Amino acid sequence: MKSTMMPVPLSLNHLLERAGTLFASNEIVSRLPDKSLKRHSFGDYYRRTRALAAALQGLGLQKGERVATLCWNHHAHLECYFGIPAAGGVMHTLNLRLSPDELGWIANDAQDRFLVIDDVLLPLYRQFAHLYKFEKVIVFPFSGAPVPAEFTDYEALLAGADPDAFRYAPHDENDPVAMCYTSGTTGRPKGVVYSHRSTVLHTLVASLGDFWGLRGTDVVLPVTPMFHANSWGMPYGAVMMGVKLVFPGPHLHPDDLLDLMQLEPPTLSLGVPTIWMSLIQTFDAAQNPDSPSHGRWKLPVGMRSLVGGAAVPEALIRAFDQHGIWILQGWGMTETSPVATVSYPKAELRNASMDERYRRAAMAGVPVPLVDLRVWGDDGTEQPWDGHSVGEVQVRGPFITGSYYPQEAAPRPPEGALPGLGRPGAGDHQVSVNPEKFTPDGWLRTGDVASVDAMGFVKITDRTKDLIKSGGEWISSVDLENALMAHPAVAEAAVIAMPDEKWGERPLACVVLKPGRSVAATDFGPHLLGHGFAKWQLPERYEFIDAVPRTSTGKFWKMKLRERFASKT
Amino acid sequence: MKSTMMPVPLSLNHLLERAGTLFASNEIVSRLPDKSLKRHSFGDYYRRTRALAAALQGLGLQKGERVATLCWNHHAHLECYFGIPAAGGVMHTLNLRLSPDELGWIANDAQDRFLVIDDVLLPLYRQFAHLYKFEKVIVFPFSGAPVPAEFTDYEALLAGADPDAFRYAPHDENDPVAMCYTSGTTGRPKGVVYSHRSTVLHTLVASLGDFWGLRGTDVVLPVTPMFHANSWGMPYGAVMMGVKLVFPGPHLHPDDLLDLMQLEPPTLSLGVPTIWMSLIQTFDAAQNPDSPSHGRWKLPVGMRSLVGGAAVPEALIRAFDQHGIWILQGWGMTETSPVATVSYPKAELRNASMDERYRRAAMAGVPVPLVDLRVWGDDGTEQPWDGHSVGEVQVRGPFITGSYYPQEAAPRPPEGALPGLGRPGAGDHQVSVNPEKFTPDGWLRTGDVASVDAMGFVKITDRTKDLIKSGGEWISSVDLENALMAHPAVAEAAVIAMPDEKWGERPLACVVLKPGRSVAATDFGPHLLGHGFAKWQLPERYEFIDAVPRTSTGKFWKMKLRERFASKT
Repeated sequence: MKSTMMPVPLSLNHLLERAGTLFASNEIVSRLPDKSLKRHSFGDYYRRTRALAAALQGLGLQKGERVATLCWNHHAHLECYFGIPAAGGVMHTLNLRLSPDELGWIANDAQDRFLVIDDVLLPLYRQFAHLYKFEKVIVFPFSGAPVPAEFTDYEALLAGADPDAFRYAPHDENDPVAMCYTSGTTGRPKGVVYSHRSTVLHTLVASLGDFWGLRGTDVVLPVTPMFHANSWGMPYGAVMMGVKLVFPGPHLHPDDLLDLMQLEPPTLSLGVPTIWMSLIQTFDAAQNPDSPSHGRWKLPVGMRSLVGGAAVPEALIRAFDQHGIWILQGWGMTETSPVATVSYPKAELRNASMDERYRRAAMAGVPVPLVDLRVWGDDGTEQPWDGHSVGEVQVRGPFITGSYYPQEAAPRPPEGALPGLGRPGAGDHQVSVNPEKFTPDGWLRTGDVASVDAMGFVKITDRTKDLIKSGGEWISSVDLENALMAHPAVAEAAVIAMPDEKWGERPLACVVLKPGRSVAATDFGPHLLGHGFAKWQLPERYEFIDAVPRTSTGKFWKMKLRERFASKT
Repeated sequence: MKSTMMPVPLSLNHLLERAGTLFASNEIVSRLPDKSLKRHSFGDYYRRTRALAAALQGLGLQKGERVATLCWNHHAHLECYFGIPAAGGVMHTLNLRLSPDELGWIANDAQDRFLVIDDVLLPLYRQFAHLYKFEKVIVFPFSGAPVPAEFTDYEALLAGADPDAFRYAPHDENDPVAMCYTSGTTGRPKGVVYSHRSTVLHTLVASLGDFWGLRGTDVVLPVTPMFHANSWGMPYGAVMMGVKLVFPGPHLHPDDLLDLMQLEPPTLSLGVPTIWMSLIQTFDAAQNPDSPSHGRWKLPVGMRSLVGGAAVPEALIRAFDQHGIWILQGWGMTETSPVATVSYPKAELRNASMDERYRRAAMAGVPVPLVDLRVWGDDGTEQPWDGHSVGEVQVRGPFITGSYYPQEAAPRPPEGALPGLGRPGAGDHQVSVNPEKFTPDGWLRTGDVASVDAMGFVKITDRTKDLIKSGGEWISSVDLENALMAHPAVAEAAVIAMPDEKWGERPLACVVLKPGRSVAATDFGPHLLGHGFAKWQLPERYEFIDAVPRTSTGKFWKMKLRERFASKT
């Protein structure tokens, strides 16, 4: 017996058409470089996006070819999210925080044919233009200034295209729509290629009530860059459900975000923990009557705040909850589209104490539908969900990557050639499977170490490479960091492993103090003992530093700390 | 270029495993025939469902074979929802409101191998047992009485199976999981066969925030029978999100439902309009201090009420809103899994008046994601979304049927044979496409006539066969019915077309008065004029009847009314 259901493919194009017909009057607000607000309706958005797609087809874009973006968060970047796939292309988001060398390397690895770039980012482009030649550089006049003559003007391109005459490129649901390179703290970045199918499925799952809980009446502020795992997929969800979008543009300073929240109060925002740490510190400082910003801001009470990209300290969750803002922590990575787990108040927690709720909220959360998750022990067996057995987190599902875009296999064009044109094999690369990243039975090895409790809450204890093994026992650097960050004088803390002759490894704590606070390193021992640590787990060494070095995605860059302190034993 | 995403199929089995590992402590409450409540945890449910699947495999169930169910709403029926597909079978829900002849015809058409039946429904089974022989009849001891020896005891079957040793039947996502026969008001029923893929996609879409808005903390009361388009798919959503389920069993009388709401207050309920009409009338009558039920019930304030299966009168929506209960109307059919449109408060209605909101809530709503919807005019062209152009609603999408299970093609067993065994072609029927139900370009013709407004709200004006064409102009029977039901003395109204020599057709209104109310037919004209009808649209004939005849799924059965009044011109 066969199913009688229609064989209709999943498609981003359906979501775009949906937005154009059902949500035409909804608003997209973009903050421009001069801090003014630019408003578009979804009706405008729909026509502009189809015009972009028509224009790209007019430029000869072929199915599967990559169009890179190097943009802040704004409406034109959202146009690329749907317009490039609509034309049959693959949107490749470049991370503007990478070095010119890295950008050149990645663009070459991806063999991007075109580049869409904000005019304000052209200085960055000029630093890597010699490393890779795009066939065409399309400049979005974000600042309003005229586009230099050697480039293609994004607005002129759209104005010259006819959205009504546009026809979607034929595709099946497994065809690619976007690619993103992982931001490994070590090693070369690796390309992940999303499909219509994986993107639609991830969008449906992440939008569900217990996770994003997206509704058409939401006002969403995506602080997470659109070049970080597609802003966690939120742009797709926003278009599907027809929410109002508020894009911060390049203005991510806490003062700017707080100002924007006054102008367009969000009901849902998303960003990494460091953004929210700075924001709450700035807000709290403004409560001082002597502050020049006193009385300038109100926080959007009732807002849901999606936080991910790094572990969220419990102290941060408590601080926001005091202001009526609930933090929903998510965990994932570029390889997982990215939402793999979300920490939401499960039904079992209905009668739990606030302490218990905070404790759970500070965990990575439970797997979302369509994601299988297991913890694989050092002994090569699956670990029980008992809240203490640890191992590597491994995941599987229809929006999890099963391979990486080939790095070595990609043809390298001769120096100075136009690699976007007529290169062999374009659109038909083989993918390679790296056994260090995938298990023989097809699960992704995430490199994160965790336990899972009986309720299904995943607690990340470390990256595999950041775990500290002292005298044969594991010490969690993440647990130490969270406890240190609960100290009233501490703004941030990063704990790394230092080689030790006697114990193998011992923890070293790097501490950033809050402005104006001082504390003796000897105070931390009693503080940590009060948080339930055993004496042998306490760091002997503390280093007071000005800031924790960060990767381009805002994660603690522990490799840099290890390099800095390795010589200072 | 290819996507790097894992080729993991969509599967109900994943949702079952998810429920077993993440929601083990959640509760499933079933009301038994004696009105007592039976409680199971999701942990119990998981083990029992796997035991059922193991037992079915032990009985030799082969991939794609049908297992019929003839059950009320309760935990064991939910076990069939996942256990039969887990074993590779196809759950075929039989509608206990059909006649014995129809049940026998449908079981034969589907070639069901086994039957799972409530013991309290055995009298119905005995009325059609001579028409079709199931290989095995598995009796669920719903009443607690011993199962007659000639049948297989469901509980003994589960007790004899090992859930831990169970292995899921291999499958791909297009393999069938369930089938349901349409309840056409005319013609033979037709089989619709759902797949893993279509069911998972429908579940994800319907569960989204603006539609069901399912969250793990919800308490869901499915009054809609599990044999009506799979209780609109809610059982799948409930398992995916881990909600608490409250099943009413056979007790659907308004008193019983109100009693159950006191014992287990729901946050979300679903049912057809007639159920809620009776319920609110019963509740309102109990507000009279002389009523024997005075003070017996409170309504669950804040509950969302999903209503579908027939048009929801605006008066009902207003009545419930006065009690703090918001009705979300949905529209769909067995062929559409079934949720195709939902009327939810769109962002554009944020500042709308309550009158405007009620008016929208009384429409079928806007298409949900993954559903393409168009209105096809008599002139063979797509109609604009202008709020007045009408035509047939046509839909397309991955959870819409593209054909029907073959009726004539199915092999007919010789009288008295055991058709479940060794019949040719079992598990590999061809499907047939009926051009009267599908357009040449692959859309489902729903047979409903509607307009769509600029916001995307679909307003069903009639079934194609119920539209009244008077003097070359269309009159909507649904509009007349809703206006009549807004009259304070009217409980229900059904309007049908009567042949007319001069005008072609004229409307005849069949009216059910509220208990103790009387009204002259001449009063209705001014009432309808006050609701915006033109004089030529008003019925000349009114018939006062005791009840509107209904189909097995609770829809107005206008064919019966036409038969009854055709001779009385």
